[in-house]
Amino acid sequence: MTEPSFVAGDWGTTHLRLFLCDADGRVLDSAAGPGAAAVRGDFPRVFDSLLAGWRQRFGPLPAVLCGMVGSSIGWAQVPYLPCPARPARIAAACVALRDGSVHIVPGLSCENRCGAPDYMRGEETQLLGALELEPALRAGRHLLCLPGTHTKWVALEDGAVHDFLTAPTGELFALLRDHSVLVPQGDAAESNPDAGGYAKGLAEFNRLSHAPLLHRLFECRARRLAGDLAEADAAPYLSGLLIASDVAGALRTFAGSLVARSVHLIGVPRLTALYASALGAHGLAAHALDGAAASLAGLAQVQRWLPSPVTAHDD
Amino acid sequence: MTEPSFVAGDWGTTHLRLFLCDADGRVLDSAAGPGAAAVRGDFPRVFDSLLAGWRQRFGPLPAVLCGMVGSSIGWAQVPYLPCPARPARIAAACVALRDGSVHIVPGLSCENRCGAPDYMRGEETQLLGALELEPALRAGRHLLCLPGTHTKWVALEDGAVHDFLTAPTGELFALLRDHSVLVPQGDAAESNPDAGGYAKGLAEFNRLSHAPLLHRLFECRARRLAGDLAEADAAPYLSGLLIASDVAGALRTFAGSLVARSVHLIGVPRLTALYASALGAHGLAAHALDGAAASLAGLAQVQRWLPSPVTAHDD
Repeated sequence: MTEPSFVAGDWGTTHLRLFLCDADGRVLDSAAGPGAAAVRGDFPRVFDSLLAGWRQRFGPLPAVLCGMVGSSIGWAQVPYLPCPARPARIAAACVALRDGSVHIVPGLSCENRCGAPDYMRGEETQLLGALELEPALRAGRHLLCLPGTHTKWVALEDGAVHDFLTAPTGELFALLRDHSVLVPQGDAAESNPDAGGYAKGLAEFNRLSHAPLLHRLFECRARRLAGDLAEADAAPYLSGLLIASDVAGALRTFAGSLVARSVHLIGVPRLTALYASALGAHGLAAHALDGAAASLAGLAQVQRWLPSPVTAHDD
Repeated sequence: MTEPSFVAGDWGTTHLRLFLCDADGRVLDSAAGPGAAAVRGDFPRVFDSLLAGWRQRFGPLPAVLCGMVGSSIGWAQVPYLPCPARPARIAAACVALRDGSVHIVPGLSCENRCGAPDYMRGEETQLLGALELEPALRAGRHLLCLPGTHTKWVALEDGAVHDFLTAPTGELFALLRDHSVLVPQGDAAESNPDAGGYAKGLAEFNRLSHAPLLHRLFECRARRLAGDLAEADAAPYLSGLLIASDVAGALRTFAGSLVARSVHLIGVPRLTALYASALGAHGLAAHALDGAAASLAGLAQVQRWLPSPVTAHDD
């Protein structure tokens, strides 16, 4: 086993994942803890108790953290860094706690292409990881998509985050699936795991991709009444409509960033696969990167760029 | 007091409203009862118990009912009448119960302008009422909007319901307002009753009305983070975005039906006022009709068109 060098942590709203890493960012051990929403201000105690075993065995370890840990509900409020943002600037804007033994990565802000303010916190670290793992992203223009509760579409220009746009696609899907009369609720809510309903939703949306989403959603109910959609396909069909709308809208909005005719996806494989097929319907290739691997690579990259930590041997 | 002639009933999912009417459709008395979802199959008993007093005083009374009472969760399943549908055909397609002393108005179906099946149940009666109350609607092309949980946009041609399109605008608003992280929840959820947030949402959406709705929703959160929107204005701002998207999308879809440069709105005054200002932003006049008055006028019109009821004097 190589020498432990630092701790990387992705501390989101609902989960904390800590990784003990060597100097090259290889994971030697990991731990899980409560998300920022559950910690309710007690970040130092939760953090120290999770690190106690590693510290006992390996001595003091610097840590770099990203996600909601840097938000208003986090350990310290780390200001958003405005775009365009180069990776080195993101690392330089980390906020140091405890004499520099803990760093928190800043989120990013921009004025998005709809002319509204926009924000990310956590995804910037995945973008740093993608730049590290995919050197081709460091030059030219690239469009990336980080699907999730709040999907982020990101324009990279010569390795800098130029601007981005958020679509709450995942949140909208979950709300409609779980609470709406458009999708069967209760006993009838079991959804068909095969991709037929999803593919049908994609194809139906794309048949008229300029039709407004709001005027397509009722189809999830009406097609069942018409005998054109099985009960169990309603939720996947809804997912197809939403993701098709997300992809079609983003491709129109970011047309100028689509130089390579391909989109890089960062996220959980289940979601990146859904987005890949939606992109395929537009004739675009998708390059998928696992979101957890991207986070980890980004945290390791930030750690390499940070000033040497003050190691507090009198801990 | 004129002579009671029939009972008109709007029996929706959540409410039943019964009106004792004279031969001209004037309301002499009214009663309220449980919606179709709460009745759970016991329609005859609920109906008879609500009518008992009137029957005791005035003898047997024919009744005409509309809404979910004619659906799969209703008293009798009344098939949807396909569009285009003329008023007299709607009346002729009523289903008679109890030897013709109770009639239920059919809902309507169509293939909407997005190429999907679409349905209404209850709104067809409001449309009959609008045709009765606004004779100008009986000739030419007119666009109507019935805002609500599931907003209906309706094209009338020479007094017939040509086709329609559903947008679940009200349902989406309620879900996002009550469950989403886009709008403050809990203690912070109090929403500003003045129309500033709504007007801002309308104007912001219309500034870029071809931008997809899905990519504008996150603004409800991001503008608060940016200090550009008060907490209490987030829900009205969301309402502005949604209604602006509904109106802009429907106007594009129904452009050919907009001969008069005006739209007739049927609904509760609070909602028709919101839609009227969204239509005003497109330079369109709005003519609002109260939804309850339209229902009642429609039921009275159906009653006039029905064959004379078999009055069961031996009741």
